[in-house]
Amino acid sequence: MSINNSLKITRLFEPRTVAVIGASSNPNKIGYTIVKNIVQGGYSGHVYPVNPKGGKILELPIYQTIDEIEGEIDVATIAIPAPFVFDVVKACAAKGVKYLSIITSGFSEVGNTEEEKQIVTYAREHGMGVLGPNIFGIYSAAVSLDATFGPGKIMAGNVAIITQSGALGIAMIGKTATEKIGLSAIVSVGNKADVDEADLLDYLTYHDGTKVILMYIEGIKQGEKFIKALKEATQKKPVVVIKSGRSKRGAVAAASHTGSLAGTDEIFDAIMRQCGVLRAESLDDAFSWAKFLADTPMPDGENTVIVTNGGGIGVMATDACEKYNVKLYDDLHTLKQIFSPVTPDFGSTKNPVDITGQAAPNDYNSALGAGLKNNEISSMIALYCETAVFDADSLSRMIKTNYANYQAGQKPIVFSILGGEAVENSITTLRKEGVPIFADVYEAVSCLGAAYKWRSYLQDYTEEVDTTAMDINAIEQIAQNALQDGRTFLLADEAQQLMAVAGLPMPQSHVAHSLDEAVRLAEKIGYPVVMKVVSRDILHKSDAGGVALDLDNKEEIIDAYQAIIQNCRAYNPQAVIQGIEVSEMVKSGTEVILGARKDGAFGPIVMFGLGGIYVEVMKDVAFRAAPLNRSEIVSMIKEIKSYPLLLGVRGEARKDIESIIDTLVKLATLIRQSKSITDIEINPLMVYEQGDGTKAVDVRVLVSNVEKGNPNG
Amino acid sequence: MSINNSLKITRLFEPRTVAVIGASSNPNKIGYTIVKNIVQGGYSGHVYPVNPKGGKILELPIYQTIDEIEGEIDVATIAIPAPFVFDVVKACAAKGVKYLSIITSGFSEVGNTEEEKQIVTYAREHGMGVLGPNIFGIYSAAVSLDATFGPGKIMAGNVAIITQSGALGIAMIGKTATEKIGLSAIVSVGNKADVDEADLLDYLTYHDGTKVILMYIEGIKQGEKFIKALKEATQKKPVVVIKSGRSKRGAVAAASHTGSLAGTDEIFDAIMRQCGVLRAESLDDAFSWAKFLADTPMPDGENTVIVTNGGGIGVMATDACEKYNVKLYDDLHTLKQIFSPVTPDFGSTKNPVDITGQAAPNDYNSALGAGLKNNEISSMIALYCETAVFDADSLSRMIKTNYANYQAGQKPIVFSILGGEAVENSITTLRKEGVPIFADVYEAVSCLGAAYKWRSYLQDYTEEVDTTAMDINAIEQIAQNALQDGRTFLLADEAQQLMAVAGLPMPQSHVAHSLDEAVRLAEKIGYPVVMKVVSRDILHKSDAGGVALDLDNKEEIIDAYQAIIQNCRAYNPQAVIQGIEVSEMVKSGTEVILGARKDGAFGPIVMFGLGGIYVEVMKDVAFRAAPLNRSEIVSMIKEIKSYPLLLGVRGEARKDIESIIDTLVKLATLIRQSKSITDIEINPLMVYEQGDGTKAVDVRVLVSNVEKGNPNG
Repeated sequence: MSINNSLKITRLFEPRTVAVIGASSNPNKIGYTIVKNIVQGGYSGHVYPVNPKGGKILELPIYQTIDEIEGEIDVATIAIPAPFVFDVVKACAAKGVKYLSIITSGFSEVGNTEEEKQIVTYAREHGMGVLGPNIFGIYSAAVSLDATFGPGKIMAGNVAIITQSGALGIAMIGKTATEKIGLSAIVSVGNKADVDEADLLDYLTYHDGTKVILMYIEGIKQGEKFIKALKEATQKKPVVVIKSGRSKRGAVAAASHTGSLAGTDEIFDAIMRQCGVLRAESLDDAFSWAKFLADTPMPDGENTVIVTNGGGIGVMATDACEKYNVKLYDDLHTLKQIFSPVTPDFGSTKNPVDITGQAAPNDYNSALGAGLKNNEISSMIALYCETAVFDADSLSRMIKTNYANYQAGQKPIVFSILGGEAVENSITTLRKEGVPIFADVYEAVSCLGAAYKWRSYLQDYTEEVDTTAMDINAIEQIAQNALQDGRTFLLADEAQQLMAVAGLPMPQSHVAHSLDEAVRLAEKIGYPVVMKVVSRDILHKSDAGGVALDLDNKEEIIDAYQAIIQNCRAYNPQAVIQGIEVSEMVKSGTEVILGARKDGAFGPIVMFGLGGIYVEVMKDVAFRAAPLNRSEIVSMIKEIKSYPLLLGVRGEARKDIESIIDTLVKLATLIRQSKSITDIEINPLMVYEQGDGTKAVDVRVLVSNVEKGNPNG
Repeated sequence: MSINNSLKITRLFEPRTVAVIGASSNPNKIGYTIVKNIVQGGYSGHVYPVNPKGGKILELPIYQTIDEIEGEIDVATIAIPAPFVFDVVKACAAKGVKYLSIITSGFSEVGNTEEEKQIVTYAREHGMGVLGPNIFGIYSAAVSLDATFGPGKIMAGNVAIITQSGALGIAMIGKTATEKIGLSAIVSVGNKADVDEADLLDYLTYHDGTKVILMYIEGIKQGEKFIKALKEATQKKPVVVIKSGRSKRGAVAAASHTGSLAGTDEIFDAIMRQCGVLRAESLDDAFSWAKFLADTPMPDGENTVIVTNGGGIGVMATDACEKYNVKLYDDLHTLKQIFSPVTPDFGSTKNPVDITGQAAPNDYNSALGAGLKNNEISSMIALYCETAVFDADSLSRMIKTNYANYQAGQKPIVFSILGGEAVENSITTLRKEGVPIFADVYEAVSCLGAAYKWRSYLQDYTEEVDTTAMDINAIEQIAQNALQDGRTFLLADEAQQLMAVAGLPMPQSHVAHSLDEAVRLAEKIGYPVVMKVVSRDILHKSDAGGVALDLDNKEEIIDAYQAIIQNCRAYNPQAVIQGIEVSEMVKSGTEVILGARKDGAFGPIVMFGLGGIYVEVMKDVAFRAAPLNRSEIVSMIKEIKSYPLLLGVRGEARKDIESIIDTLVKLATLIRQSKSITDIEINPLMVYEQGDGTKAVDVRVLVSNVEKGNPNG
C-alpha cells in the first residue's frame, strides 16, 4: 500500500459502517453468510446489504446500489462474480468508500493479473485501500465485526491472525473456537494486491486488545517493508509465524553465491530471527505458543525449575529444555534450600526436583508454592506421571490452584501430564479453561521456550542502524558507465574503483608496458609486489612462467620482468603481450566471503561465510536483512559453525572480527543506497589477526537499471 | 543375562504358573494390586498368592511359603521390602522357580549395588533369570497375564513396550488405553541387573503377536549385545525407540535417576540408525508411529501422492514430506492421466493433487480411489480443510470408507484434517477406531516417514560382516609388552609394528647413528626421505635446524646429515644427540581421521571424519558399532557433511574411498579381536586419488588389562 497510514488502516479494523455488495437472501450463497455473520456477530456499527434485486435479508432492507445508502461507508465487502467487480469498485469510489474487502476470486491467482492491477490502481487513485482479492474477509473484535464467510461464532480474545490461505484461515477459525483461543482479529490477505501483512501490522502492533500476532505466510512480496513492520511489532508483542513452502525448489538461480547458496527458506528463517519473530513449523506449535503467550506473564529472569513425580519424564523435560533453550536453574545449594523442606528424602532437590511417585496434591502445592515465592526462580515446569496416589479430580484442582497462583504472582508455569483416560480428560478440560497443559513434555517446554526466545530478543535489541559515509554518487556513476556500455557487471578496474570509493581499498594493481614503468609502479605500490603477464593468448600464466611472486626490490623487478617476457615468448611465440601487471602482494590470512544483494523477495540482504570449502561444501553461511546494526552483524557472524576459526584455534590468535563487521556495514550501506548495484561479493576477504585488519582480494559486482527488491512496490 | 536362550525367555512371557510373593489382602498394597490385575486380567495359567500371614485374597488361598505350592513355578513376582528379598530368592531357588520379577525397589538405584549383585549372582547360579529389581512388573497378552501394579484393563493388541522407567511405564499403560493402542506386552526392566532389553527382544522379535516394538531407554549397559538383538529385531518388525537424556544435562539427570551409563547421544543416534531403529523424540511421536506401523500395510514402492481440498495445507504437507523423507510422486504426465478425470478444471493434478474447496465426499472417494488403483502410487496422504461443502458425519464416513479400501488394497494412507469442534471430534472418534488421522500434517506425514525409513533400511541391509585376516596374537603380544612395561599406551615403534601386523604399514622410519647408516637406511626406504634429529634435549626440532625434507639422493643425505648435526650443536651445545631419524617422505593428500575404541556403553565402535578443522571445529564426524560391513561403512562415510571433499571438488579427482573403507574394516577387526587394545586413532590418514590408496601418518594406541565394553557382563 502506498499510503502507509495507521490512522487509515484503523478504519479497516474499526469501520463505523460496512456495505456487503452481493448480499443474498439465499442461505447457500457467500453473500448471505457474510451478512448473517455480521448480524449474528453483533457488529457495533451499521451494515448495509447491497444487491440490484433489492428485497430483505435477516430483517434488513437490501439496497439496490451503494449510492442509495445515506451516510459514509468505511468498508465495502464485495462478494460478486469477478467480471462485475471493477464496475462496483468504481461505484464505491464514487461513494467515497475507504476500504474494499474483495472476497471474489478469479484474479491474479488464476493468471488474471491485469484486471487485478487495474482495479487496485483505480482504487488507490480514488483513495481506497483494497484487502484481497481472493479472501474470506475480516473479523475484528474491536467492533464485533465478522465480515467473513467463515463458520461464525468467533470467540473474542487477544490473538490476532493474518492468513494468506483462505481455506486454512477458515479451518483456523474452527480450530481456535475448539481450542478456546479468543481472537482480536482474523484477516485473510489473499492475493495481497494492495494491503499486505505490513499494513495490517501497522494497526495490530498498536492495538491494545491484541496480545499476540499469528501469521500464516506462503510468500513475501515487499520484504523490506515487511521486515520494518515486523521489527516494530516484536518490540510490542510476540509475533508467531508459520511459513509454508520451506522446501520449495526452483528458487531463482542467482549468479552469485549470495543468491544460490541457500534456498529462500534459509534467508527467510534468518530474517525472522533478526526480527524477533517466533517461527513455528506446524500449526499445532503456532497455536500452542500463541495461546500461551497471550495469557502468560513474561518471565523476569532466566532460571527455570522442573518439578516432577517421575524421573523419566523429568529427563525428557530436561532434553526438551535444551532443545528450546530454556535454562535450568543449577545452583544446587539454593535449590536444596528451597526444595528440601518439600521433597522426601528419597527424592531429589536437584533440578529436575523429584518429589517422587508418592507425591500427593499437597506435595505439589508445597513444591510449586516454594518455587513461586523464590525470586531466583523465574518460571516453572510441573510434570505429573499418573500414579495411584491421587485421582484426576484432585489433579485438576491442584493444577487450577497453582496456575491461578502463578498468574497472580506474575510467573509463567506450564504443565505436562501423562496417563490414562481420566488424565487425558483433565487435559482437555483444563486447556479449555486456559491452563497451559499438555500431554507431551516437548510441547509444554516449547511454549516456555517461545517466551524466553522473545525475551532474549528484546534484551539484545538495539534500535540504531549502522551505516557508513560513502560518496554514493560516485558509485552510481561507475555503475551507470557499465550499464551504458551494455554490461550488467563491472570490469576489474571499475570494481576496484568502486571499492575504493566505498572505503574498501583492494590490492593496488596496475599494468606496466615497459620495464621502467614496472619499476615505477612497484615503488609506488610498495614492496613486496607480484608481477603477472597480461595477454589474451596466455591463459595459464603460471604454466607459461608468466608469474613472479614476492618481489622485494628493484633488482628483483628487473630480473623478473625480463624472465616473464622470455618465458612467455618461449611458451607461445605468437602471443601478443599487452603488458605486465604489477600488484600489491597480499599476505595470506583466514579467507572469508562477504556478499550483499537485492533479494527479489526480501530486498537488500547481506551474507557472511568462511571461504572455500566452508561455503562450497559445508554451506556454512549466514544471512541478515539490511538496514542493520553492528550487534545484528555480530549475531550473524557468530551463527556460522566455523566461527571458532575466527576466535583462533590451535593456539592461533583471534582474527580481526571488528574489521569484518566494518566491511559488512559498508556493504550493507552500499547495497541499500545504490540504485544500480544488485549484487556485490567479496571473495576472498583476507582476515588477519586482531588489529591487523582485512583485505578484499577479489570482488564481483552486478548492476542493473531495473530496480529490484520491490517487484510490487 | 549369561544364558541367552529364547526358549527360556519364553517362560517369562508365557508362564504356566505365577507366584506372587508379598500378596496382600489390603487393597492399598502393591501386593494386592498385582494379584487383582492377574485375576481380573484373565490369566490363562495358575496364580499362587504367597504371604506368611496366610488367609485369602480375591477368593484365592494365600500360601504361607512358596515351597507349600504343589507343582512348578515359572515366574515368582516379588513385592516385599528390600531387606527380605534375598531370603525369598533363596526359597525360590530351592523351589526351582525359572524367573523372578523383582518389583521391590531400594537396590542399585539408591546405591545398594552390592546386595543386588549378590541376589543376581545367586539367582543365576541356581538357574533363575531376574527381571528388575525396581520395576512395575510384566504384562503379556499371550497368556493374558497382567502381573503389574498398573491400572489394569490393558487392551490386548500387537504393540510391545519395554520401558526402563516404571513411573513412565505405568502412565504409558494409561495412555495406550486412552489411545486404544492394543499391547502384546509391556515390560518394565528397571535396574536391568540381569534381564535387559536384548533378552526381551529374543522373545518379542519372534513373537507373532507382536507387530511393533516400542522402547523407552535411559541408558545402555551391554551395548554390543543390545545392538545384535536390535539388528535381528528390525529384520522382522519395526522398532521405535525413545531415548531420554539426549542433552548433556538430561544425561546427567538420567544417570542420577537410574544406575546406568548414558552414552553420548551422537553415538547412540548413529547406532540406532545403523540398527534400523526408528528413533522418536517425544512420546507422542513414538505412540503415533507404533500405532500406525502396527496397523498399516507396508508401502511397496516410493511414490506418495497428496490429495487436498486446500492449497495451504497441501504446501505444509509437502514441507513435511521433505522433512521426513517421503518422496512425492512427480511424473506430471502420469499424475494428470490418473487424476484429471477426478479433479475440477480449476484444481491441480500436480502433486499435491488439489481437488479444491468445492470437493464433496464423492470427489474424495474418486481421487483416493484413483490413487488406490494405480500401481505407480505406493501411498497416499489425504488432507481436508473444513469447508461448508460437507458435514462432519459425511467426512467421517468418507474417511472410514477410504481407510478400509486402502487396508484391503494393502496400501498405506494417512489423513490430516483441520477445522472446528465437529472435525476435532471426528478425529478423536476415528483415531479410537484405528484410523491414522491427525490434526497436524507433520504428525501424519511423520508416520508415513517412519514406514519409509524402515523400508529403506531393509532394502539396504546386508547381513554379512566384513573382517580381515590379522595375526591377533602378534598384536596382543605388542600390547602385553607395553602393559608389562607399566604403560597404557604404545610407543611410536610399537604402534608402527602393530600397524604393520594389522596390514596398515606406516611411513618407514629408522634411527641412524652414523652417516653411513643414514645413507643405508635412506636407500632401503627409497627416496625421497625426511631426516629429523633425535634428542631429548631438543624439543623444537625445526627451530634448531634439526629437520630436512625431501631428500632425493645420497649427496643430499650427506649434506643434510652434517647440516643437522652442526645446526643442533650450535643451537644447544649441551644437547645429547641420540641419532638422526630417517623416514619415508609422505606425499600430502586429503587428511582424514579414523578411530576405533571400546565404548563403555556400546562396546567396539569406529569413528570417521575429515582431519583438522572439520573434526575439531565443525565436529563433522560419524560413528558406527562394530562388527559391521562395507555398506555400513559407506553409509558412515557418506554421513559427514564434508563428504563431497572425498568425491572431489573444484575439479579435483575422486579420492580413494575404497582404501578408507579397507582401513576401517581393519580397525573394526582389530578393536573387536584384541582384548587389550581399547583405543586406536589414525590421525591423519592421507587419502590420495582413487587407486592411489591411503597412508597412515600417525597413530595413537591405548591398551588396558581391564576388559571394557561390558561392565556388567
